[in-house]
Amino acid sequence: MKKYNFFAGPAILPKSVIMKTAESITDFEGMGLSIMEISHRSKQFVGVMDKAISLAKELLNAPDNYEVLFLTGGASSQFYMTAMNLLGQNQKAAYINTGSWSTKAIKEAQHFGQVDEIASSKDQNFNYIPKDYNIDPEAKYLHYTSNNTIFGTQFQNAPETDIPLVADMSSDIFSRPIDVKRHVLIYAGAQKNMGPAGTTFVMVDKNALGKVNRHIPTMLDYHTHIAKGSMFNTPPVLPIYVSMLTMQWVKDHGGVTAMEKKNTEKSELLYSEIDRNGLFVGNVSAEDRSKMNVCFSLHNTELEKEFLAISKEAGCEGLPGHRSVGGFRASIYNAMDIEGVQVLVEVMKEFERTHG
Amino acid sequence: MKKYNFFAGPAILPKSVIMKTAESITDFEGMGLSIMEISHRSKQFVGVMDKAISLAKELLNAPDNYEVLFLTGGASSQFYMTAMNLLGQNQKAAYINTGSWSTKAIKEAQHFGQVDEIASSKDQNFNYIPKDYNIDPEAKYLHYTSNNTIFGTQFQNAPETDIPLVADMSSDIFSRPIDVKRHVLIYAGAQKNMGPAGTTFVMVDKNALGKVNRHIPTMLDYHTHIAKGSMFNTPPVLPIYVSMLTMQWVKDHGGVTAMEKKNTEKSELLYSEIDRNGLFVGNVSAEDRSKMNVCFSLHNTELEKEFLAISKEAGCEGLPGHRSVGGFRASIYNAMDIEGVQVLVEVMKEFERTHG
Repeated sequence: MKKYNFFAGPAILPKSVIMKTAESITDFEGMGLSIMEISHRSKQFVGVMDKAISLAKELLNAPDNYEVLFLTGGASSQFYMTAMNLLGQNQKAAYINTGSWSTKAIKEAQHFGQVDEIASSKDQNFNYIPKDYNIDPEAKYLHYTSNNTIFGTQFQNAPETDIPLVADMSSDIFSRPIDVKRHVLIYAGAQKNMGPAGTTFVMVDKNALGKVNRHIPTMLDYHTHIAKGSMFNTPPVLPIYVSMLTMQWVKDHGGVTAMEKKNTEKSELLYSEIDRNGLFVGNVSAEDRSKMNVCFSLHNTELEKEFLAISKEAGCEGLPGHRSVGGFRASIYNAMDIEGVQVLVEVMKEFERTHG
Repeated sequence: MKKYNFFAGPAILPKSVIMKTAESITDFEGMGLSIMEISHRSKQFVGVMDKAISLAKELLNAPDNYEVLFLTGGASSQFYMTAMNLLGQNQKAAYINTGSWSTKAIKEAQHFGQVDEIASSKDQNFNYIPKDYNIDPEAKYLHYTSNNTIFGTQFQNAPETDIPLVADMSSDIFSRPIDVKRHVLIYAGAQKNMGPAGTTFVMVDKNALGKVNRHIPTMLDYHTHIAKGSMFNTPPVLPIYVSMLTMQWVKDHGGVTAMEKKNTEKSELLYSEIDRNGLFVGNVSAEDRSKMNVCFSLHNTELEKEFLAISKEAGCEGLPGHRSVGGFRASIYNAMDIEGVQVLVEVMKEFERTHG
């Protein structure tokens, strides 16, 4: 039976990327060796890394002063690395709190300077994106989480401000065009829209670095990885390879503009059904709904297990909501075709017929 | 043509591990999904992580007070994390310098306390293991690199001392039995003897932690990862899975005692030929020769390219020495069968017949 992968992360990858990876696991580019057992300094892997970097810049239309890094440690490591590299001990940074991830980013940054939480949606269990706030013009940057995977909210546009932005785009990178030049740094764990777990994407304005005075361990200094093209130490070869294939797939399918169109269609189809179907209710303010993670509930929560069982019978995997929220979460990243959403919508309609 | 993989790292993996990985890339445990696209919190992956942890403890015969972590960032990140977590700012640690990796470990640790380089083989371009040194009994730990991948030296036994040891075992972990309880912490990048690039093994005595007073970012505190079983954030799913399969392969083939026997046979065969064959010379003091990375040269360096070409024709890949040393390096990790070494020895004999 065909499976429809709604996991929030690690998450769905394009079928062609999976098949190509399986091939390269047994024999990479006719070398007679697995991609897992070749030197990262072989010309074959250097080619993979170069291509991954150039694809990322091309897809996001990045200006020349931006560098692309493929690191490890997840977005969780960027929570402190961004502040460690960009924020002086006597300087101030502004943060918008839209849930677990921003909360953690704030906690980690506080040790490296003054952190202003200028807005938060905690009062409504993070079911909206705060829009009213004042930013101290002295702030070095404004940090925001572009999409909240857990609660299903998304900034429809980057925050309006003249302050340079730092963005955690873990769950919506490459899902739509972005204005890179308004950002001093963008980071993303790979395992939602970019590739498998095991590498972390960083795009940074190189002119913004080197302005803090603290000691930074070599591996935590962005300069190190810029100077060595993400090869200061052995990089996570396979996660970077699969990310490169996925970015190539995005390019081959029309780039981030085409992805945005497809993601809009899929999310509109699903939100329409949530709004139409009397059994279900969306969790999030309509104007802040995520096109990546569609979070919804049953009015009658006693029916949850039955709905999950029926959707699983139809091939839908990974639908339970995050353990801190409950209900349902359909993650519909780039690689999810509209067919998967249609199957889920059919299950919802059928559930209405039998339980309405 | 069959290839013999002598790369230093990322390096050879058992064929059965490669084939099983390719299968799990297309369909993991009959889920109808790739292992790259399932949640790390799915019961299937939790099972992988649990098994990886228990296999590591079993293979190394670790006492109950030791915890096993699968992190990221490579051994290069452990250079500073070990000192950050174990060394107070006014405390002292002893380091033995056996080459590039220890040199980097010393450099990173210096920012977190007093670092005593108690011995170094730099005077002979690191071609031996220093044996005469005094350790301040006040030192919190003695750090050593058990095997130097670049120069081809190896501690035949852990240093003799009553001070607790910290060891970088990146290139010989699981290649022989070790006395875990003499170590307060052992770390290793996966990509030599344990798995593919992308995860970092740490085995730590949990009673040794929590004794320094500095701020440690959440992701850099071993406590964080112990408390969450290496699942505080999304772990590198695929590298951990392949590492688990490789550890299972070690167990199925007799464990680390059997690996040591096989590694001794392979290295003796190759060093014997280097010593017998008049064209070649070993780079390293005989008593400190590595069983993992056999480094040797041609007396007539003008013949290097020709020897590499001929060995490549015989299927031998990855033989050039590290760029900082030159000559040749045959890395013969656990997964290398004696057949590969026999092929290389035959090429050396044939080279003697035609060029002797």
